[in-house]
Amino acid sequence: MSHALPSATPAAIAAFAQLPRGAVDRIIDVALAEDLASGDLTSECCIPVVTTAVAQAITRHPMVVCGGAVFARVFQRINPNLQVRLLRHDGERAESAEVIWRVSGSARDILAAERVALNLTQRMCGIASMAQRYVAAITEGSTTRVTDTRKTTPGLRLLERYAIRCGGAHNHRDNLGSAVMIKDNHIVACGTIASAVERAKQRAPHTSRIEVEVGDLDQFEQARAAGADIIMLDNMATPAVAEVMQRVSADRRRGHGPIIEVSGGITLARIAELSAIGVDIISVGALTHSAKAADISLEFAFDDSQPTTV
Amino acid sequence: MSHALPSATPAAIAAFAQLPRGAVDRIIDVALAEDLASGDLTSECCIPVVTTAVAQAITRHPMVVCGGAVFARVFQRINPNLQVRLLRHDGERAESAEVIWRVSGSARDILAAERVALNLTQRMCGIASMAQRYVAAITEGSTTRVTDTRKTTPGLRLLERYAIRCGGAHNHRDNLGSAVMIKDNHIVACGTIASAVERAKQRAPHTSRIEVEVGDLDQFEQARAAGADIIMLDNMATPAVAEVMQRVSADRRRGHGPIIEVSGGITLARIAELSAIGVDIISVGALTHSAKAADISLEFAFDDSQPTTV
Amino acid sequence: MSHALPSATPAAIAAFAQLPRGAVDRIIDVALAEDLASGDLTSECCIPVVTTAVAQAITRHPMVVCGGAVFARVFQRINPNLQVRLLRHDGERAESAEVIWRVSGSARDILAAERVALNLTQRMCGIASMAQRYVAAITEGSTTRVTDTRKTTPGLRLLERYAIRCGGAHNHRDNLGSAVMIKDNHIVACGTIASAVERAKQRAPHTSRIEVEVGDLDQFEQARAAGADIIMLDNMATPAVAEVMQRVSADRRRGHGPIIEVSGGITLARIAELSAIGVDIISVGALTHSAKAADISLEFAFDDSQPTTV
Amino acid sequence: MSHALPSATPAAIAAFAQLPRGAVDRIIDVALAEDLASGDLTSECCIPVVTTAVAQAITRHPMVVCGGAVFARVFQRINPNLQVRLLRHDGERAESAEVIWRVSGSARDILAAERVALNLTQRMCGIASMAQRYVAAITEGSTTRVTDTRKTTPGLRLLERYAIRCGGAHNHRDNLGSAVMIKDNHIVACGTIASAVERAKQRAPHTSRIEVEVGDLDQFEQARAAGADIIMLDNMATPAVAEVMQRVSADRRRGHGPIIEVSGGITLARIAELSAIGVDIISVGALTHSAKAADISLEFAFDDSQPTTV
Amino acid sequence: MSHALPSATPAAIAAFAQLPRGAVDRIIDVALAEDLASGDLTSECCIPVVTTAVAQAITRHPMVVCGGAVFARVFQRINPNLQVRLLRHDGERAESAEVIWRVSGSARDILAAERVALNLTQRMCGIASMAQRYVAAITEGSTTRVTDTRKTTPGLRLLERYAIRCGGAHNHRDNLGSAVMIKDNHIVACGTIASAVERAKQRAPHTSRIEVEVGDLDQFEQARAAGADIIMLDNMATPAVAEVMQRVSADRRRGHGPIIEVSGGITLARIAELSAIGVDIISVGALTHSAKAADISLEFAFDDSQPTTV
Amino acid sequence: MSHALPSATPAAIAAFAQLPRGAVDRIIDVALAEDLASGDLTSECCIPVVTTAVAQAITRHPMVVCGGAVFARVFQRINPNLQVRLLRHDGERAESAEVIWRVSGSARDILAAERVALNLTQRMCGIASMAQRYVAAITEGSTTRVTDTRKTTPGLRLLERYAIRCGGAHNHRDNLGSAVMIKDNHIVACGTIASAVERAKQRAPHTSRIEVEVGDLDQFEQARAAGADIIMLDNMATPAVAEVMQRVSADRRRGHGPIIEVSGGITLARIAELSAIGVDIISVGALTHSAKAADISLEFAFDDSQPTTV
Repeated sequence: MSHALPSATPAAIAAFAQLPRGAVDRIIDVALAEDLASGDLTSECCIPVVTTAVAQAITRHPMVVCGGAVFARVFQRINPNLQVRLLRHDGERAESAEVIWRVSGSARDILAAERVALNLTQRMCGIASMAQRYVAAITEGSTTRVTDTRKTTPGLRLLERYAIRCGGAHNHRDNLGSAVMIKDNHIVACGTIASAVERAKQRAPHTSRIEVEVGDLDQFEQARAAGADIIMLDNMATPAVAEVMQRVSADRRRGHGPIIEVSGGITLARIAELSAIGVDIISVGALTHSAKAADISLEFAFDDSQPTTV
Repeated sequence: MSHALPSATPAAIAAFAQLPRGAVDRIIDVALAEDLASGDLTSECCIPVVTTAVAQAITRHPMVVCGGAVFARVFQRINPNLQVRLLRHDGERAESAEVIWRVSGSARDILAAERVALNLTQRMCGIASMAQRYVAAITEGSTTRVTDTRKTTPGLRLLERYAIRCGGAHNHRDNLGSAVMIKDNHIVACGTIASAVERAKQRAPHTSRIEVEVGDLDQFEQARAAGADIIMLDNMATPAVAEVMQRVSADRRRGHGPIIEVSGGITLARIAELSAIGVDIISVGALTHSAKAADISLEFAFDDSQPTTV
Repeated sequence: MSHALPSATPAAIAAFAQLPRGAVDRIIDVALAEDLASGDLTSECCIPVVTTAVAQAITRHPMVVCGGAVFARVFQRINPNLQVRLLRHDGERAESAEVIWRVSGSARDILAAERVALNLTQRMCGIASMAQRYVAAITEGSTTRVTDTRKTTPGLRLLERYAIRCGGAHNHRDNLGSAVMIKDNHIVACGTIASAVERAKQRAPHTSRIEVEVGDLDQFEQARAAGADIIMLDNMATPAVAEVMQRVSADRRRGHGPIIEVSGGITLARIAELSAIGVDIISVGALTHSAKAADISLEFAFDDSQPTTV
Repeated sequence: MSHALPSATPAAIAAFAQLPRGAVDRIIDVALAEDLASGDLTSECCIPVVTTAVAQAITRHPMVVCGGAVFARVFQRINPNLQVRLLRHDGERAESAEVIWRVSGSARDILAAERVALNLTQRMCGIASMAQRYVAAITEGSTTRVTDTRKTTPGLRLLERYAIRCGGAHNHRDNLGSAVMIKDNHIVACGTIASAVERAKQRAPHTSRIEVEVGDLDQFEQARAAGADIIMLDNMATPAVAEVMQRVSADRRRGHGPIIEVSGGITLARIAELSAIGVDIISVGALTHSAKAADISLEFAFDDSQPTTV
Repeated sequence: MSHALPSATPAAIAAFAQLPRGAVDRIIDVALAEDLASGDLTSECCIPVVTTAVAQAITRHPMVVCGGAVFARVFQRINPNLQVRLLRHDGERAESAEVIWRVSGSARDILAAERVALNLTQRMCGIASMAQRYVAAITEGSTTRVTDTRKTTPGLRLLERYAIRCGGAHNHRDNLGSAVMIKDNHIVACGTIASAVERAKQRAPHTSRIEVEVGDLDQFEQARAAGADIIMLDNMATPAVAEVMQRVSADRRRGHGPIIEVSGGITLARIAELSAIGVDIISVGALTHSAKAADISLEFAFDDSQPTTV
Repeated sequence: MSHALPSATPAAIAAFAQLPRGAVDRIIDVALAEDLASGDLTSECCIPVVTTAVAQAITRHPMVVCGGAVFARVFQRINPNLQVRLLRHDGERAESAEVIWRVSGSARDILAAERVALNLTQRMCGIASMAQRYVAAITEGSTTRVTDTRKTTPGLRLLERYAIRCGGAHNHRDNLGSAVMIKDNHIVACGTIASAVERAKQRAPHTSRIEVEVGDLDQFEQARAAGADIIMLDNMATPAVAEVMQRVSADRRRGHGPIIEVSGGITLARIAELSAIGVDIISVGALTHSAKAADISLEFAFDDSQPTTV
């Protein structure tokens, strides 16, 4: 964590962005079953099987684009013959009224999948866009990261963590089994921070760092003494955070000492303040639990060369 | 729709509120698998199996309570021996700092399920609370309904529609197979509104009404002439909506004529304006796609009579 | 429902018929798992992997064809390289000894999938054919519809409702969540028909009509006064049904009044009688719970150019 | 097969009848999801959560009872607190208007599960009853068995095979992986019956008998010479069947020789004829693909001591 | 079982070997979900999306090749565009350092699937190789079969039974529902072997043989008298087995009498001894529960024509 | 990793051991479906429904006990009324012929579940016992850990990682998404170790350490210079490993420097040698891919007070 790396550029995100196919398909299939298990009554009434169309996903306001592969996959789960073209990479910024993705083929199948495709991707673009605003608030030159938390939408964590990355922010631990975070209740149950950290070091895989959540300077010192790899300052005021950074500054100059994370009541203004102080991580639950959906419309053009009535 | 019914009271909601068990379990199991498929590393390190605790769900701001049964079920899927007590009915309003639910038993199991339980119910309370604000904006004496749309979180539609009802609002159609809604693209594909409505009447179950989305007065008259049961005015300005209500007023006095729905860009201010005009339905996508999660904390008390170390 | 529409022709059915892919695949996968989870012992013994064949689905008696896409999909779930050609559209009538579908490719894969493909489609053709016989019994010029009920084979409702439509009949509500039908037990629990209808109007989506099942003229009048959208006359004799139609005739001439449905003990003879009286809907459980499977055989021709032994 | 055993009595069936819980639950869960995934709109409108009822399953005509455990399990998947009492054992004969099963508890939950419970068990009773009629047609003193085939309803094979046994008939092989049956197409692909049987003996588990389907006496002799354990005479006339039985009579007197099975176009009259000749097995596809559902009604009595309104 | 057939050659295995696609996909999808549900963190960091590679599966010691289709399918579930070439048939013997399979395409996708592909196929090759060693120990000229048991790895039975066949051994019954095996506890519950066999003959499908497990000569005679089709000598010493073979020799010369199976504590040395005596079947649990994984490495060559950095 | 902690005692393992219920149930359900989807033909023939029994799991050789909760859960998934008593904690050592677990209730249900219960737990005990032998080989006083790898049985990773811990060993990373391990192919794709580590630090959650696999001292120095948190010496001879430990000794005395892991061709003898040198981690694939199943028998006693025949 002591390496100062530039944030990923949209091009770099595009070059490395990928979601595991099977896991994405399971999410999409649940969503399609929810909306389409009994078919699409309206389209089956009104749209002949042979009618084709081209539909364009158009932004209604500036946003960070996210979810092109999800958009494509929703349509292809309905009908593998639908053609999708992604005009913008994930992680890129689009202005208002831009065409970011395009799908063509059976009009009926596009209409049947439209709502699911938009429900998923509007959420992803919304999260990516909110993440980008938080990342943009980081004081220039700071290596502070903004991260998500486990406060994600149940069932959609994979997509939302990806959206966080597309917005230039970072991910925290994936789930309860992938890293250790010792919170107040664990400490109470173990008796002391030292005891909790010792147990965690004994049991956790050596690939995981040990994080401890603390609420004041006294707890911070206990966690530090216990050898915690990461110390999370929960709802601590900026002066107390500054005091912590001061206390660890000597260790940090030598490339050691714990990673310092701050969480709780994070606003854009506090992002600037905290990154200026030099904390390593600012974790923000609101990025996933309270992001507003981005507004994207799907506009159709029917293919004139096709019969539209029977 | 011509019956003016009082909105459901919280007591009535509590008396009738219920979610289908199997469908709820499928949602919960996906959420638990996402967070807990490899176990809870921290609790397995720090909390002895025999430690017990009582944890209370406490509101951090005023809200409409929603999801008690979901809260209970998450814990019981982890461990059927956990005891849950719901202190507030769904649909009730809680002030800040109220204890609304309580769970007791194995501390480790409560901690393992905590995040999933809160992620689901904070979303539900958030939606119910936002719905209630919109319902409260309806002009007094009006029988206008506020409804949701299909812009729900993929995988959570069942819970979100329920939250809508707990907030005193109503549900729109459940999915693409449960009712007909003819939109602009269907009309283009069919040639005319009349043709689309005729096809829909021929094909749809007699238990479903036929809804047509229109964008101006001309389309409205076509839909009316075609015998649409519901006409949805999409993104039409208030004067145009008023004109529609005027045109159908004679029919409505005789208990006939189409149900009039308004959608698109609905704000609290417009709710008041549109309900004063007397539209039947105002459908609001933001209720589900952009509600902020309510803030609920789970506070633990460990049972002193239990050993906390081994 | 007051529009007199011609029944759908086979061509129109073919032009609009479609089943949602994901839901169909789930049905097929359950069926294949049931028969083929441990492989096909006989074919693995006797048919070399490289042997190819052409197999033709041949009718053994006149029938309404139904399930071509299901036939194709069963084979393609086993082996995407199998080629299927549908020689008859769903909804068309085939005589005895006609080739309706054809599949070619790996002989072993065709044999492995044969039974599942036939078990599904023989049922679909059987239902479509029975539905067509009932529809044919409607008095000429009448706009009465024959519909199915929820008495479908568990797990196969989607396919059976589709078969109903291919036979020219219509669907009733899809499931317990897609429309309201107030039956005797609901009425008892609510106290009165009026109370039950009022509750239903308050709670149900505005896209759903409210149906009430009644057993005599007195209940009929209560349901009508309560504003039920559909009134179902359950096991009422023809004279009583005629009396109902007489009482609503004035409203119907003005395009209003409830939709009248008849159910219970429906025979072909009663279809004629009831449609002559002018009821809107005749719902028939036997169409799905007691249809006999149509008889279709799959006849193989092995490709001579392929080696048949190793 | 050379042991002449009495058919199982209903008491014996009851003593041994059991279905594997997990597999039954998977069937029931699919059925409940199909009907109840979005809840039960009507009951949620009309039945207060606290209302309780007792509902009795009553036969509408004489039948063989089958599916008590399935009836119980459907209700308990919805609500484990529902109490079910089975008044008749599976395999017993009930007259018309008998109460065979009873369920009590939450009225709303009983109503929600009613249709699924009846759809499954009416089919099971229908098959058991049809099977019993076929078994009853066996000539007295004969040890001939009537069996099912793989022509079962996709997804419900487990339940239908059980119903066959409750009717006193027997099961054929369970699926494509549990035994070998060499049919005409396998023979063509292998070149000769001898070659097919040889391959099957080489590959099949020693726990499985090798069955060969033949269409005439010549093929019969080939199968016999090849050492087939079971020879199925497909669509052969009674005189040819009698000739086969004559040819194998010497072997059978010594307790050897193939098991003789007859299939194709089996009527009740032919059951008598064929069992008199002494064939071992008569397999009948119609038992599962074309049985009519038995008629069972569920009659409710609400508990007066419970409030029925709120 | 009295036919002496040559063991299947690798060519014959290759000509008939096949696994049911749906069942294999279910196994693979579980395995991929276990390893890859949150993506492949390392490859997403380090391997650009566009980088391609060729990877070769190379044996690290001599082995029987098994699982080519599984190897291919794992990669194609991740990315259908990956190209797989199988250089060796299943059932063939490979020496050390041979390339048996090859996969090419997206480097990242190959790396993501590598571990799952190897975990599955190394186990399959390990079992096939161990089976072959046991089969090779059969005395020359003997028709004794070596078979597996139900002691397979939970979830992988289908693949392990296939591996057994690729090694030249045979399968025992597939599962509890596909054949009857009466063991000591069944005998105790029924009272006598005769009673247990009688019940089994009455209930089991005529396609299944009845097997009885016995522990001494006395029980053997009871099973034989009861007409058991297969008698399994459990943990009986070689002299006792020889005595059994002596007692049944007269029947066997006439092509009758029970199939004799031996099980319990089977070593390679005993295989020779028992097959020399002429037992029909030797079943060996260790083939599946204690085989060591074969050692196969996947060696990569990156495509120079592709950019490897961004 | 610089803390020297005593290995967990069996009592401590018992106090903290726990598996997530939902994930365990999914594993068990797959296993039961595989063996029991069509029921248990033999028990349904031979064991009356009312017969009860007590069955004891008895060790046939000394072993580390593991999987008590899995044993219990298998039986309870079949029948929740079966009573299970665990006489030994997981992680305890049992001698030969000890009763470690006991189940009582319906004899038929115990028999139906027996094989699945044993297949799962014999594997778990086998792995725990093998792990314990490796842990016992660690030089006294050393803090070296033995860990598993991702070479687990597909579908059973959760259980196998738990067995590893019960044997006193530790877990490596859980899956591809829970930590970063840069191997040779990643390095080739990135160009240099430094580039790969830099990318990983930029992208990976701060809760994960970055591990690099190296094959010689030169690569080791590159990884160390790049700031890798863990360096894995792959197939390096003991002198080279000793050289690495020498080079990092100064850093380690100050509590810094990378964690050193050794892997490849680990035998019991090398465990002693490497732990004496002081490496932190020795990872051993054979613990999961090549452990032999422990031998446990389930011995039945039928309850005399119950009728055993009908």
